[in-house]
Amino acid sequence: MTGMVVVLSGGVGGAKLVLGLSRVLDPAKLTVIANTGDDFLHLGLAISPDIDTILYTLAGLVDPERGWGRRDETWKFMEAIEQLGGETWFRLGDADLALHVERTRRLAAGATLSDITAHLARRLGVGPRILPMSDDPVRTRLGTAEGWLDFQDYFVRRRCEPLVHEIRYEGADAAAPSAAALAALRDPRLRAIIIGPSNPLLSIGPLLAVPGIRAALANRSAPVVAVSPIIAGKAVKGPTAKMMRELGLPATAEEVARGYAGLIDAFVVDPVDAKGAFPAAIRVLAAPALMETIEDRERLASATLAAADRLARSASV
Amino acid sequence: MTGMVVVLSGGVGGAKLVLGLSRVLDPAKLTVIANTGDDFLHLGLAISPDIDTILYTLAGLVDPERGWGRRDETWKFMEAIEQLGGETWFRLGDADLALHVERTRRLAAGATLSDITAHLARRLGVGPRILPMSDDPVRTRLGTAEGWLDFQDYFVRRRCEPLVHEIRYEGADAAAPSAAALAALRDPRLRAIIIGPSNPLLSIGPLLAVPGIRAALANRSAPVVAVSPIIAGKAVKGPTAKMMRELGLPATAEEVARGYAGLIDAFVVDPVDAKGAFPAAIRVLAAPALMETIEDRERLASATLAAADRLARSASV
Repeated sequence: MTGMVVVLSGGVGGAKLVLGLSRVLDPAKLTVIANTGDDFLHLGLAISPDIDTILYTLAGLVDPERGWGRRDETWKFMEAIEQLGGETWFRLGDADLALHVERTRRLAAGATLSDITAHLARRLGVGPRILPMSDDPVRTRLGTAEGWLDFQDYFVRRRCEPLVHEIRYEGADAAAPSAAALAALRDPRLRAIIIGPSNPLLSIGPLLAVPGIRAALANRSAPVVAVSPIIAGKAVKGPTAKMMRELGLPATAEEVARGYAGLIDAFVVDPVDAKGAFPAAIRVLAAPALMETIEDRERLASATLAAADRLARSASV
Repeated sequence: MTGMVVVLSGGVGGAKLVLGLSRVLDPAKLTVIANTGDDFLHLGLAISPDIDTILYTLAGLVDPERGWGRRDETWKFMEAIEQLGGETWFRLGDADLALHVERTRRLAAGATLSDITAHLARRLGVGPRILPMSDDPVRTRLGTAEGWLDFQDYFVRRRCEPLVHEIRYEGADAAAPSAAALAALRDPRLRAIIIGPSNPLLSIGPLLAVPGIRAALANRSAPVVAVSPIIAGKAVKGPTAKMMRELGLPATAEEVARGYAGLIDAFVVDPVDAKGAFPAAIRVLAAPALMETIEDRERLASATLAAADRLARSASV
């Protein structure tokens, strides 16, 4: 099969699948639309955590232990910030800092986040296109037992500890998808749209809260396949399961699929979850969903593409 | 002698004398008014080179080889900036960067450079007060054979190579001295005002171009003693001598003294220069002016203070 593939992705988990896809596909046919709901200003610097994780992962620079930030990182800047009484709860490595300084400078000079991301990807030798979901600000905020918290405040400073009762994607209603993102989702050569195994509430939620992106999925001309971030009732990483439970939702792959109903055609789950009660309209495919090695990522990427291709063939019969 | 001492200072040379003064005086009696004509925005960050050099020198953090920047510095940020295609001609170390990020953030939040400098000095455990000459922008620019250049463009990027035919201190006419600087210069407990052995054109020139500072020196109530940055026709560091020649001035200690005429009472020169033809109204005192060791700095500081004290005694007889 040829054709273009678009992935909607958050940070670490989504980036791993994107890396797998970039190795089983011609990278020129792969477009990633990244969540920007986590973006924030810290120490005066514009930080886009999910874009950065995808950039570093595809550039081969990501720290393999953490799954985010740069490998072989040093922390002299943070030590000096601490000495000067600056904020230290969000840690910026010395090399990583360059990305934020350069992005902040270019934003101040009038460039869009889309322009800047394309420039950074080119400089880092990244093949697939990486597009922010929007050049308009969208900010994920959490209603918690400690009041409303900004995303990074909840996620990093408070380590996902406060109970969450509500999530808002501020600005999403008014946010336009970036022109390139919209064009990618409407491309007549589209082979598949993939929703990565990212947190459905914190990473995919903001993407689907942008009306133009949700509409593009609802009116899809190619199969949409989502990959479950939940395996056997647990999130591979992060607070997905904890947060689902706090919001009164079962922390299961089925529940994630239910949340995507109407927007996806197939759902890829780990074999341990394949017997769940999934919505009837969603085709369920089992494939090992834990991505520890690079081979795991390639296999899951191939299985996901195969699922989309089977759907396309059955639809065209 | 007791009383307050104020030093007008640029970067490396001035900072060395200030360090000497801070060791022979009660630091609480020492105030440094720093040139801000070199300040600039680089990579979107607000950089104040002379203030930083004074801060690092007094905090014991300065790189002993270069005389500016931090000791034990690392350069991962610069490597990453280069990788991202950012500007690399002005090098910012990983730890040094924290100062600029924190200053930029605080300026954006509405703090003055005076407030921020006081905060940074406190955090770094610096005893003497360090005051920017003004919270208003003053920018030294150079008319050269290559056209008008911003200071750092000339000084760092072009390594002082272009011939200079004119110097402007843009904004100086309209700049008010910081309130604290003016109060320090008018303090009735003032023992001496010292002009450090900094470049008279690039470091002291902008300070004296601020009308309120020049007036405070012209109407001084305590002796003003300058220390020569020229020894035997050569600048200890930097382009002072080269630039004086290009502007048609003899590169001599006498010429520096002539430039300060009407504003100083005494001039401290190295013994090799003591027989020059100095303006009659200026008392000339010889003291070894090369500051290689910490003892050199203390001796020159003591000699400079002694010169001021002798003038004060002879005036009061």
